[in-house]
Amino acid sequence: MSELPLLAKKLDEADELAPLRDRFVLDEVVYLDGNSLGALPAHVPDRVADVVRRQWGELRIRSWEESGWWTAPERIGDRIAPLVGAAPGQIVVGDSTSVNVFKALVAAIRMADDSRDELLVDATTFPTDGYIAESAARLTGRTLRPVTPAEVPGALGDRTAAVLLNHVDYRTGRLHDLPALTAAIHACGALAVWDLCHSAGALPVGLDEHGVDLAVGCTYKYLNGGPGSPAYLYVRSALQDRFDSPLPGWNSHAEPFGMSPAYTPAAGALRGRVGTPDILSLLALEAALDVWDGVSVTAVRAKSLALTDFFLRCVGEYTEPGRVECVTPEAHTERGSQIALRCPDAGEVMKRLIARGVVGDFRHPDVLRFGFTPLYTGFRDAERAARALGEELA
Amino acid sequence: MSELPLLAKKLDEADELAPLRDRFVLDEVVYLDGNSLGALPAHVPDRVADVVRRQWGELRIRSWEESGWWTAPERIGDRIAPLVGAAPGQIVVGDSTSVNVFKALVAAIRMADDSRDELLVDATTFPTDGYIAESAARLTGRTLRPVTPAEVPGALGDRTAAVLLNHVDYRTGRLHDLPALTAAIHACGALAVWDLCHSAGALPVGLDEHGVDLAVGCTYKYLNGGPGSPAYLYVRSALQDRFDSPLPGWNSHAEPFGMSPAYTPAAGALRGRVGTPDILSLLALEAALDVWDGVSVTAVRAKSLALTDFFLRCVGEYTEPGRVECVTPEAHTERGSQIALRCPDAGEVMKRLIARGVVGDFRHPDVLRFGFTPLYTGFRDAERAARALGEELA
Repeated sequence: MSELPLLAKKLDEADELAPLRDRFVLDEVVYLDGNSLGALPAHVPDRVADVVRRQWGELRIRSWEESGWWTAPERIGDRIAPLVGAAPGQIVVGDSTSVNVFKALVAAIRMADDSRDELLVDATTFPTDGYIAESAARLTGRTLRPVTPAEVPGALGDRTAAVLLNHVDYRTGRLHDLPALTAAIHACGALAVWDLCHSAGALPVGLDEHGVDLAVGCTYKYLNGGPGSPAYLYVRSALQDRFDSPLPGWNSHAEPFGMSPAYTPAAGALRGRVGTPDILSLLALEAALDVWDGVSVTAVRAKSLALTDFFLRCVGEYTEPGRVECVTPEAHTERGSQIALRCPDAGEVMKRLIARGVVGDFRHPDVLRFGFTPLYTGFRDAERAARALGEELA
Repeated sequence: MSELPLLAKKLDEADELAPLRDRFVLDEVVYLDGNSLGALPAHVPDRVADVVRRQWGELRIRSWEESGWWTAPERIGDRIAPLVGAAPGQIVVGDSTSVNVFKALVAAIRMADDSRDELLVDATTFPTDGYIAESAARLTGRTLRPVTPAEVPGALGDRTAAVLLNHVDYRTGRLHDLPALTAAIHACGALAVWDLCHSAGALPVGLDEHGVDLAVGCTYKYLNGGPGSPAYLYVRSALQDRFDSPLPGWNSHAEPFGMSPAYTPAAGALRGRVGTPDILSLLALEAALDVWDGVSVTAVRAKSLALTDFFLRCVGEYTEPGRVECVTPEAHTERGSQIALRCPDAGEVMKRLIARGVVGDFRHPDVLRFGFTPLYTGFRDAERAARALGEELA
């Protein structure tokens, strides 16, 4: 009999983050899909109920001031900031990731010199980033050039206005070298725009430290904000005065209630706001972020790597050699917080795994994706998932 | 003593819509700010709790299919459709009004002949529409020309690509002539884009009947969807194949889970979707729309006019002549569902009214705004508000 179940138990017992699991609603399912939709933090339902029943139902319009609705986008941005290595005043929450990619790219192009007529986009990124980049290029008269992250240094030049990259590849789980790529982009005089959807909340990002210009990310994966919860936009302090939004809604006006027909942008990160903020979802996210109180992202990263290492070891022991190909890099410096395994029948295999209570997901055409959320995933979860996978693949 | 309190009571007793008030959470406050934030429908909290606790907390990722999350934008669009006179398949819900104005305007400009280089915008509209119109014009190389709705017929010409108009003026409550203006816009070969924020749910709109091309609206006023609930976009069936979105997110792709790097737009109204839909807010809105079951918009309109007529009569009796100026038109054909009264000390007067439990709002610089939501506002509310106003103005 394998020693892995016992080892998993020991690893869980030694895990200092293990008690965080109690902050979430979980059951007997092994949930390895937190990189698609994070689990529900246990205290969120009561907070949402208060927002609906008291703030909306009783205070109604007064809540815009009295319940802090109006300032929620920047207040919650400041809650996300430490998780991505940003000082306060640089992040606002609101709109979808796609919409924020649009704001960031058009604004980046406008910050670059007019002679720079090319926009580079990560060819391996989540598709929506590519579609939106194409629209941003079209509307600003730039040429879009898709390149892999590895090709970026060679593709940079005098023509490059901005580069949109994904920090972690959604399919393979590969972590790209944000510090080095950002430095290379800056060396050529272009702006670096990063999509943090698959990294924020799972590993240190260091936006300020590495001089990232603009960044976007969703909040429903490792940040557990709830289905389709609002995304965020980071604009580096030094660039905020030059942030010229393609979506200048009344919420980004210097004096929104002045109702002036002329647009004067607000100072700071507020410039990234657009329309009326979506309060129910925003405040559910704000509540969800409480689970991070006192949690170190460094500790989360260490556990994430230990979990994915252990999962790979279990897969190695439980699965016939050659039955799956791991497309996630072995090297820690190149690995996000998911393991992607390729096999021809991935779609069917994932269906069977889900039916027996091991929830990962399938990405077209042949990838099994297992996401590891260090806040609530344990080593026994990893072992159980690998064992079930081995049985289904046998 | 005035006969108005007794008359109000009789009018309430004869009001066939009066029982609908019980579908909302209301208290002793006279709430005349439903044109800013609709009151909470009584059954919404339990529905939201189910979405959070069961759909997110227990089913988690499975809810994208099993709880109908994925199809919510178009399903809820079809719930709004009859309220604005649209056949199914033409409305999707998601994003803010501002973002939808952007989609609609850029798409309208792209549908117009290239030689048409001018975009007309309602100079009296809610400011965000003007700001976004300016951005749409800038990004598409058109000239923006602000004109009042009355000036539109004279301003139309061969250069006009599209016209953005607000159905009801947010400040004065003036209802613009959607059928005639749309016809005039079409006669010159341009596209008509309407903002329905202040009309949908208060009066018949007739989008299909009058051949409106594109329309947007919020859902948190007369539709009671909750603070910052998602807005909607209407694209007339006949134009959907030519709808070329400036925000082509993965949710509007013909095959969103194909994860193709090339964008192929979905057919129909889905083309107006962008990123991952905001489920908590969307499903709160869906629940809120249940209050409309069996309610006729014609009956709502009749009550709205009766309410505003009665309120004006009460104001006339309770307020010293000349103390306030009514800026909302007398004519029913030109009146939305609010009454706007102008007086120099409007800001102070509204503060005192709110302190005594009569909630309207103030619009810079000198407008007192009283919104009448026929689903839950009664004639006694109107009388009480006018009486309090008269006392505060004395």
